[in-house]
Amino acid sequence: MTVQARYLQRTWYVAALSTEVGPEALFPRRLLGTSVVLYRRADGTPVALHDRCPHRFAPLHLGKRIGDEVACLYHALQFDCTGQCTKNPHGNGHIPKAARVRTFPVVERYGFIWIWMAEEAPNLDLLPDYSPLDIGHPNAAGYTYMHMPANYELIIDNVMDLSHIDHVHGEIITTRGKLSPIVPQIRETPANISARWEWSQQPAMMIFANFLPRPADEARHYFDITWSAPANIQLSVGAVQDGKSFDEAVSQYDLHTCTPEDEFSTHYFFATRRNHVVEDAEYNRLKIEGMHAAFENEDGPVIRAVQQEMGTADFFSLDPVLMSNDIAAVKVRKLLQKMISAEVAETASLNAAE
Amino acid sequence: MTVQARYLQRTWYVAALSTEVGPEALFPRRLLGTSVVLYRRADGTPVALHDRCPHRFAPLHLGKRIGDEVACLYHALQFDCTGQCTKNPHGNGHIPKAARVRTFPVVERYGFIWIWMAEEAPNLDLLPDYSPLDIGHPNAAGYTYMHMPANYELIIDNVMDLSHIDHVHGEIITTRGKLSPIVPQIRETPANISARWEWSQQPAMMIFANFLPRPADEARHYFDITWSAPANIQLSVGAVQDGKSFDEAVSQYDLHTCTPEDEFSTHYFFATRRNHVVEDAEYNRLKIEGMHAAFENEDGPVIRAVQQEMGTADFFSLDPVLMSNDIAAVKVRKLLQKMISAEVAETASLNAAE
Amino acid sequence: MTVQARYLQRTWYVAALSTEVGPEALFPRRLLGTSVVLYRRADGTPVALHDRCPHRFAPLHLGKRIGDEVACLYHALQFDCTGQCTKNPHGNGHIPKAARVRTFPVVERYGFIWIWMAEEAPNLDLLPDYSPLDIGHPNAAGYTYMHMPANYELIIDNVMDLSHIDHVHGEIITTRGKLSPIVPQIRETPANISARWEWSQQPAMMIFANFLPRPADEARHYFDITWSAPANIQLSVGAVQDGKSFDEAVSQYDLHTCTPEDEFSTHYFFATRRNHVVEDAEYNRLKIEGMHAAFENEDGPVIRAVQQEMGTADFFSLDPVLMSNDIAAVKVRKLLQKMISAEVAETASLNAAE
Repeated sequence: MTVQARYLQRTWYVAALSTEVGPEALFPRRLLGTSVVLYRRADGTPVALHDRCPHRFAPLHLGKRIGDEVACLYHALQFDCTGQCTKNPHGNGHIPKAARVRTFPVVERYGFIWIWMAEEAPNLDLLPDYSPLDIGHPNAAGYTYMHMPANYELIIDNVMDLSHIDHVHGEIITTRGKLSPIVPQIRETPANISARWEWSQQPAMMIFANFLPRPADEARHYFDITWSAPANIQLSVGAVQDGKSFDEAVSQYDLHTCTPEDEFSTHYFFATRRNHVVEDAEYNRLKIEGMHAAFENEDGPVIRAVQQEMGTADFFSLDPVLMSNDIAAVKVRKLLQKMISAEVAETASLNAAE
Repeated sequence: MTVQARYLQRTWYVAALSTEVGPEALFPRRLLGTSVVLYRRADGTPVALHDRCPHRFAPLHLGKRIGDEVACLYHALQFDCTGQCTKNPHGNGHIPKAARVRTFPVVERYGFIWIWMAEEAPNLDLLPDYSPLDIGHPNAAGYTYMHMPANYELIIDNVMDLSHIDHVHGEIITTRGKLSPIVPQIRETPANISARWEWSQQPAMMIFANFLPRPADEARHYFDITWSAPANIQLSVGAVQDGKSFDEAVSQYDLHTCTPEDEFSTHYFFATRRNHVVEDAEYNRLKIEGMHAAFENEDGPVIRAVQQEMGTADFFSLDPVLMSNDIAAVKVRKLLQKMISAEVAETASLNAAE
Repeated sequence: MTVQARYLQRTWYVAALSTEVGPEALFPRRLLGTSVVLYRRADGTPVALHDRCPHRFAPLHLGKRIGDEVACLYHALQFDCTGQCTKNPHGNGHIPKAARVRTFPVVERYGFIWIWMAEEAPNLDLLPDYSPLDIGHPNAAGYTYMHMPANYELIIDNVMDLSHIDHVHGEIITTRGKLSPIVPQIRETPANISARWEWSQQPAMMIFANFLPRPADEARHYFDITWSAPANIQLSVGAVQDGKSFDEAVSQYDLHTCTPEDEFSTHYFFATRRNHVVEDAEYNRLKIEGMHAAFENEDGPVIRAVQQEMGTADFFSLDPVLMSNDIAAVKVRKLLQKMISAEVAETASLNAAE
């Protein structure tokens, strides 16, 4: 399998948090092994170009913004948002036909800039709906970005298998041993794998306890997660007391999403929105800082160590001993692999037909 | 030849100094390209496990000691000293048959923890007798460890060919040019290569002179070294005056032993016991510090530079110009290669017979 | 194509600035992937040896100078300037026939030590004449060295295509946009590619303006560059006013020359001599410092970024969009490739004939 074929191509990946790409920036990021430069038109809409001048391969992000266009640092060739060269200051100024930069379709939604890396036309229907992130007070939502030196599937594994929570993480989100014994309910569709856990614990998870009627008492909890290709995991978690339904829970709605930088290095993006203390900016800041720190300092060392121990070996080739807590993660690995294989086969058959 | 076949397998390697593995430690070390975690049972006896949980490949040394068992950090699977999983906190707690960690036989002797990395049953007869290290006052023995970014055979070469001493090392162990002209006496057995040098010098080696009757006068000296597979070199050195026999020499009994971390990186262990100033703890400390410094700052730079210059090339493929001072080192290289080849052939024939 | 065949062999490369190799030095440098040690005989003439003792492959530059000879640090084998071993302090002192170090022909000219890396006899006719560097007041000439983590042809490209000047460099050598529109005049010989630009600008280039009769007025300028194999570019640049001929220009005569350290790393050497303020040592110091800084801080980041973006890909395999300003650089790439291919073919035919 070629490296290219290790990634699903006809799908949307997160290229950046919306906040990472300022109005004047030329923001470089390597995605699926390809260098990309992101920037915003004067009207704010994002643009993604191959970060490589087609002349002598200088990265465009080293260059200059000129209105909605970009001029290469090296010889000042200028390109517009469609990738077309619009100015050649050399010789008679003739612009060769081939003087074009590859562009990538991008769309900005839910606080992220999403990118379509495939050659084929983008299909917006394939972008999942995460609109709950947008709805509500701005101080109730937080976003963060981490760079992880590990294959992106190891990060998906980590989130799909929440049974690690009581072992890896600290007091703040402990389920007091209640989660691990539960075999989650699995729901499957052709495009999604979901898992759900429900349990009671006393006291409630620390992140919720103070917003419940009786912080020290037992509460019902749930985790509900849904994976969508290629690497999006929507996670909801909440707690209730007094026999209320989970619809009335003190809860949060999160999105974990990963984009391979390359095979052994990943851009890890995270968003969270909660339905409590929604106006408190300082609480919001501490909340997202705390979650960032948990990923970085608690999940991070394990995931990095697993990658180092695995080296370049394929996960299944190492004969993992899989258990009931791995059901969801393994289903995701297999469905993703099936999607990639189908895409490879489809491309091969299209190529054969040409 | 596979990388595996570059190392003799059915043999004992030093995994660690006894002092490196404390009573509570989970001590990780990469040996022959395999990650190993060492720890001690409550009774002090050492255990070696593959440092890889069979579930999702997290290194076990990141986990927790629970009595004589180890719990993985990631999902708290627990393993006993035989590698058997004893606890799965997930789902119904069922322990899959395959939930076992590979263990490695270890034995603690002469101040070292020795490990057997082969699949076959360990053979204690193959562990050489270095009991002289154990006999005597504790302040007369010292141990040290160095990490060397070089193939282990380059370190064996260095010790087997003592003719480098007057050129690489300083005043403290100079033979005043007497060693180089000597072609050592070689003794060979199917399992050992030994070399012996005898000479007179004035004054005696600095490390011995002050413990001889007349420090400024001439003394008779000897070096006697014996290599045993895979990478142990027992070195004795001493000085006498007044026509005494070498049995009465002011002397020391050393062990240099190497374990490949991988092909281009080596764990270098060293032990020394002397028969003079045996009770002086401060002298002992300075002595082992001085020897450590000599390896690190005098041999180390040469060995590292040789490795860098050789790159990934095989020693003999570079057509070394060999001389009389290389006899012992070359005999060791050839005997070790013969042992490895014999082991490979035996394995192949066993596999064919299956 | 083997790595060896990526470099022209039967040619002179700069090994070092004359000033880099002091009278007592053993100066190591990796050239074309081979480790070389340079030093000077008592009479000052340079010597180049393979920086590898043929015994156990220790780098000779770690050793000691003994008159015009070099003794290896490891076992004190001693070699003369012809690479012959002259002393073996071991055993009976016999010197094996094979105890020779490869030497490389070197010649010191124009402030550089040039080296011939091919097996064949050196041909001094292939060393271009850069004697103008030698002629004149010592305070009118400057030399500098830079290490560049990029393939050497990317550096040649940079100098052969001066159209980058107004885009990459600052005010001090701007042509005020005049250079880019010019398609240079190209001159070709079997061994050289030259390019020439002529233009007027007001005011003159900052480096010349103050030495012209009327600094603020318009001046005629020229650039004239000539590439010679393998990686030498002689560059002349000057300015005149009042209808004078370029022979009377305020000008400088430069040499840019590169030697591959390996495929992705280059030794970049530079020399300059000017015909104005020729006695001012402080001006000279500031001038060479300024030019060094321009290469390092302005060209350097672009060239390094291009290398990183290209990875290990061949330049033409990436389908560069080439324009009128690339004529000279592309002609150099093609002529150099033709020379390398001819050399490879000649070697193959010689080998076949043997």
